[in-house]
Amino acid sequence: MSQAAKKNINVAFSGLGQRGIGLMNLMLETMPDVNIIALSDRYADRVEQAKNDVITKRGNTPKGFLDYREVLTLPEVDAIITPSNWESHFPVCLDAMKAGKAVATEVGGAYSIEQCWDLVKTHEQTGVPVMLLENCCYGETEMTVLNMIKKGMFGELIHAEGGYRHDLREQVALGNELRHYRLNNYKHRNGEVYPTHELGPISKWFSINRGNRMLSLASFASKSRGVNEWIKKNRGNDFENAEYTFALGDVVTTVIKCAHGETIVLTHDTSLPRPYSRGNLLQGTKGIWMEDKNGVFFDGISPRDGWDHKWESIEDYYDHYRHPLWKWFREHGVEGGHGGMDYLVLRAFIESLQNGTKTPIDVYDMAAWMAITCLSEDSIAMGGQQVPIPDFTNGKWIDREPPVLGKYCLDEICDC
Amino acid sequence: MSQAAKKNINVAFSGLGQRGIGLMNLMLETMPDVNIIALSDRYADRVEQAKNDVITKRGNTPKGFLDYREVLTLPEVDAIITPSNWESHFPVCLDAMKAGKAVATEVGGAYSIEQCWDLVKTHEQTGVPVMLLENCCYGETEMTVLNMIKKGMFGELIHAEGGYRHDLREQVALGNELRHYRLNNYKHRNGEVYPTHELGPISKWFSINRGNRMLSLASFASKSRGVNEWIKKNRGNDFENAEYTFALGDVVTTVIKCAHGETIVLTHDTSLPRPYSRGNLLQGTKGIWMEDKNGVFFDGISPRDGWDHKWESIEDYYDHYRHPLWKWFREHGVEGGHGGMDYLVLRAFIESLQNGTKTPIDVYDMAAWMAITCLSEDSIAMGGQQVPIPDFTNGKWIDREPPVLGKYCLDEICDC
Repeated sequence: MSQAAKKNINVAFSGLGQRGIGLMNLMLETMPDVNIIALSDRYADRVEQAKNDVITKRGNTPKGFLDYREVLTLPEVDAIITPSNWESHFPVCLDAMKAGKAVATEVGGAYSIEQCWDLVKTHEQTGVPVMLLENCCYGETEMTVLNMIKKGMFGELIHAEGGYRHDLREQVALGNELRHYRLNNYKHRNGEVYPTHELGPISKWFSINRGNRMLSLASFASKSRGVNEWIKKNRGNDFENAEYTFALGDVVTTVIKCAHGETIVLTHDTSLPRPYSRGNLLQGTKGIWMEDKNGVFFDGISPRDGWDHKWESIEDYYDHYRHPLWKWFREHGVEGGHGGMDYLVLRAFIESLQNGTKTPIDVYDMAAWMAITCLSEDSIAMGGQQVPIPDFTNGKWIDREPPVLGKYCLDEICDC
Repeated sequence: MSQAAKKNINVAFSGLGQRGIGLMNLMLETMPDVNIIALSDRYADRVEQAKNDVITKRGNTPKGFLDYREVLTLPEVDAIITPSNWESHFPVCLDAMKAGKAVATEVGGAYSIEQCWDLVKTHEQTGVPVMLLENCCYGETEMTVLNMIKKGMFGELIHAEGGYRHDLREQVALGNELRHYRLNNYKHRNGEVYPTHELGPISKWFSINRGNRMLSLASFASKSRGVNEWIKKNRGNDFENAEYTFALGDVVTTVIKCAHGETIVLTHDTSLPRPYSRGNLLQGTKGIWMEDKNGVFFDGISPRDGWDHKWESIEDYYDHYRHPLWKWFREHGVEGGHGGMDYLVLRAFIESLQNGTKTPIDVYDMAAWMAITCLSEDSIAMGGQQVPIPDFTNGKWIDREPPVLGKYCLDEICDC
């Protein structure tokens, strides 16, 4: 791990769409110990825009490329961050590790189980740090819930639900204009294409890959109507894809079974009109949290009147149960987008490089979470059949050593 | 149909537990055109209690029996209502129809597909009215949503969710003391044991058995912990069943696929601490309703700020979209338990007998909805395998004639 104990980290960005530009500027504005020294994107105008942002905010002129593989040849690059399209996440991660560059990728799902295994094996062979930038693992509520679990508030965990429930019809429909990858994925794939915003936190709560694992799943897709209807209504019947038969069902439901008997229900729901929700729900023998109620109920603690159990606001529990990282963050001053979790997930990556510690979302998490996508495609293609979820740890999940991750710890067994 | 166009209906009750007594008293207090003339329960003390209630409130002395089959021999009985244990619903309905007695049963699930077919065939052979008393079909919100669907507010329907999410640990654990049927079912069965409170309304929204049908399902159960933990905490380690391995998973998830591409997700969740919810959610191409938000969002109508779609209270839509039946009910004065829906579902049965019209929840609805229970047991037993849902209409679902049900209509195509 060549980056161990290095104070300043030289970062390259690969993928400079809206999300890439956003994350890069967050780093420019909030992380003086990070230098952005190289940039790549398939579109030259995006590289130019990003280059100008770096020059304006930091004074240095990063090198620009149309192919990320050129970035990997630069000896001065310590780490590469790839908020690129879904298809390129695995290739960039694999090539980066092979080139000895630490790598962090934005979220998405896998296209095959084989690429998940390649990721694991390449990391095991090279020892190069790799991390999934699953920002929702660092959400204030998600981390408060994690801390409450550690303190025993939920008892034994039984069931969780989550989703990506976000009206993205416009983004999908205008995918060519926006140069956005969702359009082509929705045209050709039917599955849980975006599982990690909910599955990431749930996996940490359920100690997946550290004493527990996901065993199997089955997925089910509704018909596909939402994007076509949006196009016809907003752009007319002659607009591209107005009559195209999208592969992706408007609502995709996935049920996962875990080694210790827990169930997880995921919902992908981005092609119909609705307010945003990650649909989180966690149930244990002693309590429940439900995101859409912003509510908790704890047995023997929360008020009830006979059969009438009353929701309490989870916010009433923040002062007592806020995760140590978020206590620090609130004292430090919350920075960056998506309520601060973008900052935290990037810092978790950067500081793991500086300190030579393991990444808190590691290669086994990545492989397990991202595999859900192609496995759900398989299940739907076979009519909702159960499909097995590989054990990417090859048995190490049973008694993996604690991660010792300090303040960015996301695992139940860590001492933070 | 011997009861056709009969003004006063002579009713017998079979099953006089807490629910039976409640429904019987509701009829005694609110329905002067209904006479309670016979009673049965396996426990003599319950029969005595019910008899006294009738004498006190109406003056007549009903006949009492320990076996419902004796009730069926009484020529003066027009109809039998059976809020009995789950196991007896089918036998009572079958025997009643064979005896020429109209019959309405409280909700529950089936134990085999064969008994669902027997129900259908017996009704088709005898022509005797039969109805499931699914009160939630008559909930004010459920009916408002039904009316909104008819008016096109949701566009094309895509997906629905619902559940029976109710902390019943005490009722289950004390089943022997309470003489309640849940205990034995939870000890021996693993499946969606109580699907109809949510599936009933959803089926009416989705035109199941009238242009649509449920094709297949798969079910998944979490581990079972909640009831054991409740017993140990509240009654001690030596209390009955403290160490018993309950068959029923604490959370059972069922996914149903429909003929026109809709998906339905059901959740049975009664063994963990939580506030009550039926977890209803309905999504179409133009709008969404979510019970737990008490909220709706309609495309182009509800407020949004860029990507930020705002929930509106469904109550803001009641004045304009309240179902005609509920308009009448509010003018008439809402009566009876569970927010009035117990009254409405009982009146729907009684008035169908008085008017000689079909029951609004008919034998095909009953068979399809109740079959979910034993099919989900099959699916769980086979590891989450897809199982087919029979077409109990034998093809009639494609173009069944409108029900012509007047004010108690629950079907999308009816003219109310």
